[in-house]
Amino acid sequence: MERWELNILGCGSALPTTKHFLSSQVINLRGKLYMIDCGEGTQLQFRVMKLQFQRLSHIFLSHLHGDHCFGLPGLISTLGLMGRTADLYVHAQPDAEKIFRPMLDYFCKELPFKVIFNSFNPAKHQLIWEDRSVNVYTIPLKHRVPTAGFLFEEKPKQSHIIREMIDFYHIPVSQINNIKSGVDFVTPEGEVIPNQRLTKPAEPPCRYAYCSDTAYSEKIIPYIEGVDLLYHEATFSNEDLARAKETFHSSAEQAARIAQAAHVKKLILGHFSARYPDETILLKEAQAVFPNTILANERMKIDFS
Amino acid sequence: MERWELNILGCGSALPTTKHFLSSQVINLRGKLYMIDCGEGTQLQFRVMKLQFQRLSHIFLSHLHGDHCFGLPGLISTLGLMGRTADLYVHAQPDAEKIFRPMLDYFCKELPFKVIFNSFNPAKHQLIWEDRSVNVYTIPLKHRVPTAGFLFEEKPKQSHIIREMIDFYHIPVSQINNIKSGVDFVTPEGEVIPNQRLTKPAEPPCRYAYCSDTAYSEKIIPYIEGVDLLYHEATFSNEDLARAKETFHSSAEQAARIAQAAHVKKLILGHFSARYPDETILLKEAQAVFPNTILANERMKIDFS
Repeated sequence: MERWELNILGCGSALPTTKHFLSSQVINLRGKLYMIDCGEGTQLQFRVMKLQFQRLSHIFLSHLHGDHCFGLPGLISTLGLMGRTADLYVHAQPDAEKIFRPMLDYFCKELPFKVIFNSFNPAKHQLIWEDRSVNVYTIPLKHRVPTAGFLFEEKPKQSHIIREMIDFYHIPVSQINNIKSGVDFVTPEGEVIPNQRLTKPAEPPCRYAYCSDTAYSEKIIPYIEGVDLLYHEATFSNEDLARAKETFHSSAEQAARIAQAAHVKKLILGHFSARYPDETILLKEAQAVFPNTILANERMKIDFS
Repeated sequence: MERWELNILGCGSALPTTKHFLSSQVINLRGKLYMIDCGEGTQLQFRVMKLQFQRLSHIFLSHLHGDHCFGLPGLISTLGLMGRTADLYVHAQPDAEKIFRPMLDYFCKELPFKVIFNSFNPAKHQLIWEDRSVNVYTIPLKHRVPTAGFLFEEKPKQSHIIREMIDFYHIPVSQINNIKSGVDFVTPEGEVIPNQRLTKPAEPPCRYAYCSDTAYSEKIIPYIEGVDLLYHEATFSNEDLARAKETFHSSAEQAARIAQAAHVKKLILGHFSARYPDETILLKEAQAVFPNTILANERMKIDFS
């Protein structure tokens, strides 16, 4: 069964509160886990949410502010203590390795697995990871330090073959996969049956975009056009727009305007400032512009495939 | 009012669990906070326990294993975001500054206060901090890396002056403090009244010892003789003594034997391995040797003055 599940481990901003953990989330893509950001306490939440450490092989860091990455050394230590042997990839801007490698060398001397830093340039939109399940692209964001969001794009699925056509043309089993991949069928008599007569197009690939932290930036719109789910930071309410500008963050309304302009299917708000005891103010502000908006919350799981 | 209060922020060992946070505790000494160890998640627990960040000026690190210090950068960042200006002391072995200074330089560029690393040699028993309230000494421990416990010793209190003697000898107010400090009184006629006739001795200074992480080590006994409260690690049960030896940790029974030999008033066990779903096994094992034993637990507050 196909399955994209977003797990919210933390959706608070800079200061942790008794309500919110710091930024981290995990995409569960048919059992493979991809982590985005790793604030302090991430490994605790990972355990609380009953995610499986051995299924995690990729950590993507949006930027090097402490609330998005201070959980990395602890998580890696724990993976080591649990006897992991598979490589772990940390996708981040180049400074990440400069900062964290010395810590790992000091604290995790006998780590039984390799930590591979895959450096990227956060100012560019590019493919930074590709495997059988997914392509991951960076989305250049506008923040106080170099920052990139991430676009997770499912690999194109195969077309569905139409059963009646198999029977009608007596298509042998050996040809089924070729046809699903787009190849035409040639009958024993030499007649070419075009692929589109034999198949129904696959569902479009599922796409998820993570955009945090960022000031309002229309430049990201082309990269996230039509995604199934957009996580966009909404640190502030529009009432605190001056503060949002000053700190290169967004208001909930700004997040909604991006969602609307990019025709996304659903918007989830996160990275909440500690100043709002009740985030309904942020939700209402966004829903006025883009109705299909929800608030992130710790331990939330969202299926969106 | 005099007050020593020990706050347990975390008492788990290497691997965090859904039950225990990583090592950290805070001594509240008449409103001044002294932190011992700072595992990942410490700042979250600090907030949950409603401790006041601005009252914290000293952090003592027993050793440089991640579960005892990975919370430091996050805590310091948060103190900065909250606008702290007072110096913060981090007492630790010399490597701590080598490891954490580059992180602070990178992540906390505009920190509005100074972080002062006070380096000590964990192999020596020595006075490493002294202020008006307390003397703090290191206790050399036996672990896989250089490790020191800490002895917190209240400054000696003044004697109590006996009210009847003030009246009897017509002692002027100007002399009261001198007499409390141990000076004899000389009457206008030149008669010397010895101090011990005028005063009752003060209560002995309160003393607290933190010994974690450590293998069983009788060498620490003289340093902790008669303390009011001893926190001693009890990572394992005696059933897992081989594992305790191998990893330079203690069993609950070993902790109790140390408490008994050192004539401490009360023992609190902590640094529990994740392998015991019910730590009553550790408590019973220790109480068989040293009855006045309790188990540490997160968010526990213990008054012991």
